[in-house]
Amino acid sequence: MNQRSAGPEVQRLIELLSKLPGLGPRSARRVALHLLKKPDQLLTWLATAFADAAAKVQSCRVCGNFDTVNPCSVCVAPGRDASVICAVEEVGDLWAMERSGVFKGRYHVIGGALSALEGIGPDDLNIRSLIARVASGEVREVILALNATVDGQTTAHYITDRLAGLDVRITRLAQGLPFGGELDHLDDGTIAAAMASRR
Amino acid sequence: MNQRSAGPEVQRLIELLSKLPGLGPRSARRVALHLLKKPDQLLTWLATAFADAAAKVQSCRVCGNFDTVNPCSVCVAPGRDASVICAVEEVGDLWAMERSGVFKGRYHVIGGALSALEGIGPDDLNIRSLIARVASGEVREVILALNATVDGQTTAHYITDRLAGLDVRITRLAQGLPFGGELDHLDDGTIAAAMASRR
Repeated sequence: MNQRSAGPEVQRLIELLSKLPGLGPRSARRVALHLLKKPDQLLTWLATAFADAAAKVQSCRVCGNFDTVNPCSVCVAPGRDASVICAVEEVGDLWAMERSGVFKGRYHVIGGALSALEGIGPDDLNIRSLIARVASGEVREVILALNATVDGQTTAHYITDRLAGLDVRITRLAQGLPFGGELDHLDDGTIAAAMASRR
Repeated sequence: MNQRSAGPEVQRLIELLSKLPGLGPRSARRVALHLLKKPDQLLTWLATAFADAAAKVQSCRVCGNFDTVNPCSVCVAPGRDASVICAVEEVGDLWAMERSGVFKGRYHVIGGALSALEGIGPDDLNIRSLIARVASGEVREVILALNATVDGQTTAHYITDRLAGLDVRITRLAQGLPFGGELDHLDDGTIAAAMASRR
């Protein structure tokens, strides 16, 4: 991007904005212009919010969630069942689970999924720390809430194998029709899974 | 948006991000997660870039461009023709003109277009300052590079009327086929304009 008609600060702003997921050079320019129109409002607020987050937000040393306290507020919340751990791929998945409000145990963020293609092996993920948590003996169930993708399911298999020797129940999220899903628009795999697990 | 599973700093970050043009709650969350994954990189850089821009970028007192110097670098650039002013609606239009590299005069950012619907009158726009620049006597041509919309063209008419008494040539951008435009995909108005201005 070349934006010589404004100063280097504006150039830098657009360049960094265009690195955000979902923003290209064009939309980065649009966002920059929007921010510069009222520099004492959103631009300043975001500068503060970004600096605050960078200074205070940490990765929870127990589960991997992002929070300003460590261990995170989910890990220390009273009334949550410490004997059930829900393993998810990313923090965004943890937040999605929390929004649904159906789970009242603890979490473990794996940090992704095994992928031969992208060269992601077990040591690149937080699997060892999950096994250590389970081996501590307080956990009676691990729910593998990994994505219903090939990589996600491969990872679920791998974790199941690694936990085999321990006295713990291992479950996975059910596969089937999504809420409001129409048969005509669903792939064969989903229909097959829903049929196999019919109640 | 409710994100109790992370701290208030994260909540604030997502809330502000979702106010950016083109980002909704979902994409704001995605951007926040992307930033928090490596807080010492993009998140910190953006905090600095935003604070820098908020502190240093100003609206040029002559033309209305955004820059860290005032008057802006376009206004003070040597070798640009001060006797030709290109009037545009927004700073983004100025940048677009500069990217095309076809214009070597000065600019004037009107700040929008007249709109009865949105209640935008002449006093809400930088039209008075344009007339003052022209009245100073150094300007021999004003190019009205306003959008080819009803509001843009209404504004162009209005400015032409206001400049009528002054000794200045007033031109507009040609209307016609866009580069690579196919007749079959163009609206009737464009085709009619291209036909009327045929060479």
